[in-house]
Amino acid sequence: MDNLYTLSEIADKRFSNGEEIPQNIIDGVKKITSSGGFIGMAQINPIAGNVEYNAKKIAKYIKYACKIGLDMVVFPELALMGYPIEDTIDRHPIIVEENIKWLKGLAKITAGTTALVGFVEPRKKDAEGKKYFNSVAILKGGKIVGIVRKSLLPTYSEFNDYRYIEPSPVVGVQPAETLGVFDRGCESGCLKIFEKYGISICEDCWNNKEFFDKHLYEKDPIEELAAENPEIFINCSASPTRAKKEQLKHNMLSFLAHKYKTPIVYVNQVGAIDNSSFDGSSRVFGADGELIARAKSFEEQFLIVNPTKKIGKIYPLTKGLDKSLNEQKVFTLEYESDLERTYKTIVQGIRDYFKKCGFKRAVLGLSGGLDSTVCAVLLADAIGKENVFGVSMPSHITSKESKSDAEKLAHNLGINFTEASIRPMIDTTTECLDKLFKTVETKWDGRYKTSFTPDNIQARSRAMFLWGISNEFASCIPIATSDKSELYMGYATINGDMSGGFAPIADVPKTKLFAFARWMNENREEKNAIPEAIILKKPGAELAIDPKTGKPLIAEDALMPYEFLDEIIWRVENKNEGYQDLLNTEFVYEKHNTISREQKTEWLDKFFRRMSTALYKWSILPPSVIVESRSINKYDYRQPITSGKINYKGVEDEYVSGVLADE
Amino acid sequence: MDNLYTLSEIADKRFSNGEEIPQNIIDGVKKITSSGGFIGMAQINPIAGNVEYNAKKIAKYIKYACKIGLDMVVFPELALMGYPIEDTIDRHPIIVEENIKWLKGLAKITAGTTALVGFVEPRKKDAEGKKYFNSVAILKGGKIVGIVRKSLLPTYSEFNDYRYIEPSPVVGVQPAETLGVFDRGCESGCLKIFEKYGISICEDCWNNKEFFDKHLYEKDPIEELAAENPEIFINCSASPTRAKKEQLKHNMLSFLAHKYKTPIVYVNQVGAIDNSSFDGSSRVFGADGELIARAKSFEEQFLIVNPTKKIGKIYPLTKGLDKSLNEQKVFTLEYESDLERTYKTIVQGIRDYFKKCGFKRAVLGLSGGLDSTVCAVLLADAIGKENVFGVSMPSHITSKESKSDAEKLAHNLGINFTEASIRPMIDTTTECLDKLFKTVETKWDGRYKTSFTPDNIQARSRAMFLWGISNEFASCIPIATSDKSELYMGYATINGDMSGGFAPIADVPKTKLFAFARWMNENREEKNAIPEAIILKKPGAELAIDPKTGKPLIAEDALMPYEFLDEIIWRVENKNEGYQDLLNTEFVYEKHNTISREQKTEWLDKFFRRMSTALYKWSILPPSVIVESRSINKYDYRQPITSGKINYKGVEDEYVSGVLADE
Repeated sequence: MDNLYTLSEIADKRFSNGEEIPQNIIDGVKKITSSGGFIGMAQINPIAGNVEYNAKKIAKYIKYACKIGLDMVVFPELALMGYPIEDTIDRHPIIVEENIKWLKGLAKITAGTTALVGFVEPRKKDAEGKKYFNSVAILKGGKIVGIVRKSLLPTYSEFNDYRYIEPSPVVGVQPAETLGVFDRGCESGCLKIFEKYGISICEDCWNNKEFFDKHLYEKDPIEELAAENPEIFINCSASPTRAKKEQLKHNMLSFLAHKYKTPIVYVNQVGAIDNSSFDGSSRVFGADGELIARAKSFEEQFLIVNPTKKIGKIYPLTKGLDKSLNEQKVFTLEYESDLERTYKTIVQGIRDYFKKCGFKRAVLGLSGGLDSTVCAVLLADAIGKENVFGVSMPSHITSKESKSDAEKLAHNLGINFTEASIRPMIDTTTECLDKLFKTVETKWDGRYKTSFTPDNIQARSRAMFLWGISNEFASCIPIATSDKSELYMGYATINGDMSGGFAPIADVPKTKLFAFARWMNENREEKNAIPEAIILKKPGAELAIDPKTGKPLIAEDALMPYEFLDEIIWRVENKNEGYQDLLNTEFVYEKHNTISREQKTEWLDKFFRRMSTALYKWSILPPSVIVESRSINKYDYRQPITSGKINYKGVEDEYVSGVLADE
Repeated sequence: MDNLYTLSEIADKRFSNGEEIPQNIIDGVKKITSSGGFIGMAQINPIAGNVEYNAKKIAKYIKYACKIGLDMVVFPELALMGYPIEDTIDRHPIIVEENIKWLKGLAKITAGTTALVGFVEPRKKDAEGKKYFNSVAILKGGKIVGIVRKSLLPTYSEFNDYRYIEPSPVVGVQPAETLGVFDRGCESGCLKIFEKYGISICEDCWNNKEFFDKHLYEKDPIEELAAENPEIFINCSASPTRAKKEQLKHNMLSFLAHKYKTPIVYVNQVGAIDNSSFDGSSRVFGADGELIARAKSFEEQFLIVNPTKKIGKIYPLTKGLDKSLNEQKVFTLEYESDLERTYKTIVQGIRDYFKKCGFKRAVLGLSGGLDSTVCAVLLADAIGKENVFGVSMPSHITSKESKSDAEKLAHNLGINFTEASIRPMIDTTTECLDKLFKTVETKWDGRYKTSFTPDNIQARSRAMFLWGISNEFASCIPIATSDKSELYMGYATINGDMSGGFAPIADVPKTKLFAFARWMNENREEKNAIPEAIILKKPGAELAIDPKTGKPLIAEDALMPYEFLDEIIWRVENKNEGYQDLLNTEFVYEKHNTISREQKTEWLDKFFRRMSTALYKWSILPPSVIVESRSINKYDYRQPITSGKINYKGVEDEYVSGVLADE
């Protein structure tokens, strides 16, 4: 079957360039697929709500599928609308009407090939529950011949399906009497045709009672579908990448195929929508649970397979997607295995955010530190080096090395670079503020003896420069360079380094960034773009002088060792550990550093105190890419800002009795 | 019963001052309540996640209820945890453990009086579904004697219950075998005691199939409870105020009482948690549907009632809460009836955000314009005039009137005031940026001939001053003064006027602000604090000169008439109207202004275009108060930023066929 995939790759390239597929390719593929039983997996990258854009893309693939005589072409969940679409369909129902219009149009261009197209299905006006179903339409012979509706609606992490979607009580192709709400052309008579396929949508296949220890739902749609003995399972999905999720997905799909002795065709969305980056990696497992085919990760692809005859091609999975499940049980500094996935997740996240919003260029401050360095590399790779402008903005504290490291980096990357001193800004602002503070002081007490004002003036002056460039030059946004460790500690300046149009590394902890920088130096085409000095230096904001050393303050001295901090974050996020758990178990850091219980207590206290006051900063963080299995992205995790006074330590029973007796 | 409420008001004052309730009050109340059948409605203001704080408050009321011999004391939904608590309980399960500890402690201090206390109930580890129930514990005689669980979980607007809560299949007091998960002291034998009360939680009572045209859920818990013939319905609630919601609530509760010939006791949370402001206004309806009692709006209160004997007191409802339902069908500039509610909703929102986060003081720029003026008044009333600092920050464009209006306002309000010119900031920044832009220009094309850079430099310099004060003086946050109309148009500067620790009027449209200012002038104790000139002047940011007039640009010239804009917003939010609906129906503005179809088209185009690109700004907007029935608050409404290319106009069927034929 090598020839099929050689031809397909040529076709894919033509698709991505918007070119016609030449007749000889069509003929070549058709020769192979004409024997029947072939399915096209259309792993597409939609734009949320841009129904016309998505429909055009879908139309191209449907036409191609018809030309090469496929039995079926399968698109991801909500392919016409893009997933997630969120509350948009509630406030702007026009786009649902539009998606029906385009769906009907797409039905008309199908011929002998069946197309499965995800769309938002409006329910009857007087129906109980939410206004919409998350559905897949079965298009054939110019008509909508059947509908499948999602039953299990995720409402955790970045998912909010149940906010706007009604769960379907019926799995598989819907009974005739529920059809026809929006399309009188639906033909009830032809439903039986689809008994061959057990069709489900995304979460529907994630609730097997044998495979999972914990079940979020009572219903198991796949179990129900299996009872009807379909020849092939098909799952239309939109499942974003998260650390350590892929192995689970692989095992689960393989388990389902094997358990029900039925091949499964899983078609996933690719591309990023706001904070969620979808990896694609669509695949097919045979009836014995064996992997038959797998599409590329982080790329659009049209993969032709024959699940019954076990014809397919397994493209390599991005490293990290295949990470073993065992590793997720303990914190480790061994990030290596997840770095390729991290890289592609973020690069795709940046690229799609820019493209889908209509931005072309980015400007960022280059401090010579790790955060801005990693951001610069990612940006260069995502939107092109010519579209990135790095600005070194030294103050009186900035060292010569910082400036030269930044310049060296820019040179290595080939991005645009300039230097602009913020000293005049600092001088003027400081002078103005000194005067202002003196007036305020006549009315208000509580002026700090030492404050962060001078630090913040620097960070904000820099943001003023970057936003200035963004305002002055077309199609350009500034970049927020805050990392995850520092966001947890609130160690980021409002209207300063945490401000921007996009925050590429907001979900990457600092210790991972070090490994990430080294990985990029080794794995990018241009080796060692990041100067070694940047990776070796101790992180610090270079905003203040440490009175103890007379040198710029090192972040770890102001906070705590990053290794320790990152393990707290990991354990709180992945293991739900509380203060006492953390205090009473050994950290990786402690294996090679002796620290007193007092020191550990001090760091833990600082972590919970600073995290509590950082909640506000999380709420105003620019759009970013979710990378890890759990994040602080406001659309992934929400905690009331006013809950800052939570007692994370807990109290003793005796304390409770005492307090309540006193009230 | 006048005496009961006279004594109760004294007790309430003591409660709010943290003082003991004197014995003569207790004796006086007890004399009345000893005849039996009295219920205490404890309308409390909890802090989300601060279980100890909430438990102490609850304990005080339980002890008092015991002392005065009430049959029962009822607290709001999730009283121990505060509502909403959101994902916090998922990531930090420690606070759920804590709420169980404190619940057990509270059980111990109950004697003959029964207490209904809302809490988060952990489910069995292996249970299917979410980890928690949203429950009410029945505490009596030192023990937890029963549990009621919420069945209907709202997931619209600001509600996200189903993200972390499992709906209860059983309404009312739970069967004995489901208890004991966390408390072996639960007594299954005593469940029968509570047949007298039909207890439900918040949304559970919002699904009557006769009363509502549209039902979000299949189940109707009240119908099920009614089948057991309880003597009294009790509903523990946390229902935030939204425009025009109250009349619906009143009618619905009255309907339920009347339909089932059963009195209903509805206890609502009061106070604000982040963006949601809860109005309290707890109440009782008699078996005939008549209102018997209603607690104060926007205040903590302990209201004693006897639903069977129809003993109660009806405190006046904040005007606006009682707005008739008819008014919601069309847009109107008659805001009068909703202004008291608007005022109290925001004042409470500000006050609680500050108090619960531990802030005392606010600083804001006073431009002499309407937005900052209204914010200043609200702040003075919410946190005290001595805690507000108004700063006039004139630039070269600022008129003398703007400065003197600002000063006059500050003087009238008695807030602190100073003036600080931003001209040195503008000069330095402009100089620095000019140089920087020249360098950038050597590498990048696309420099705008006229840009917003000079406007934004002014807005950002001002924010620099305000954040400076916030950094330098303890316990102080700057205020973002953007209003709803301008946020829809993206007419607000990032890191400028839309930046701050809190945004008081982000959900108030401009035309309402005019009426609001007049209302405050008439209804605040100090009359006419707002200089008439501020209300009369045409809004404008005073950031740029209009080349046509040579005077500062008027916002309506840059945007469109606010009256027209606000009607678009209202119709999009409340009627889900799309572009064509708006174009083809008459606006209020058109009743007294002749506008061409071209003009209307231009404004509508501008609205949808600007709204699409404002999505990013909405996502980084500081915490604010939700006021209107629908808002753009990111926790109330979510639309992907990358969906900016939505075609709000829609297309013709022929267009669809044409495009798809061409692909």
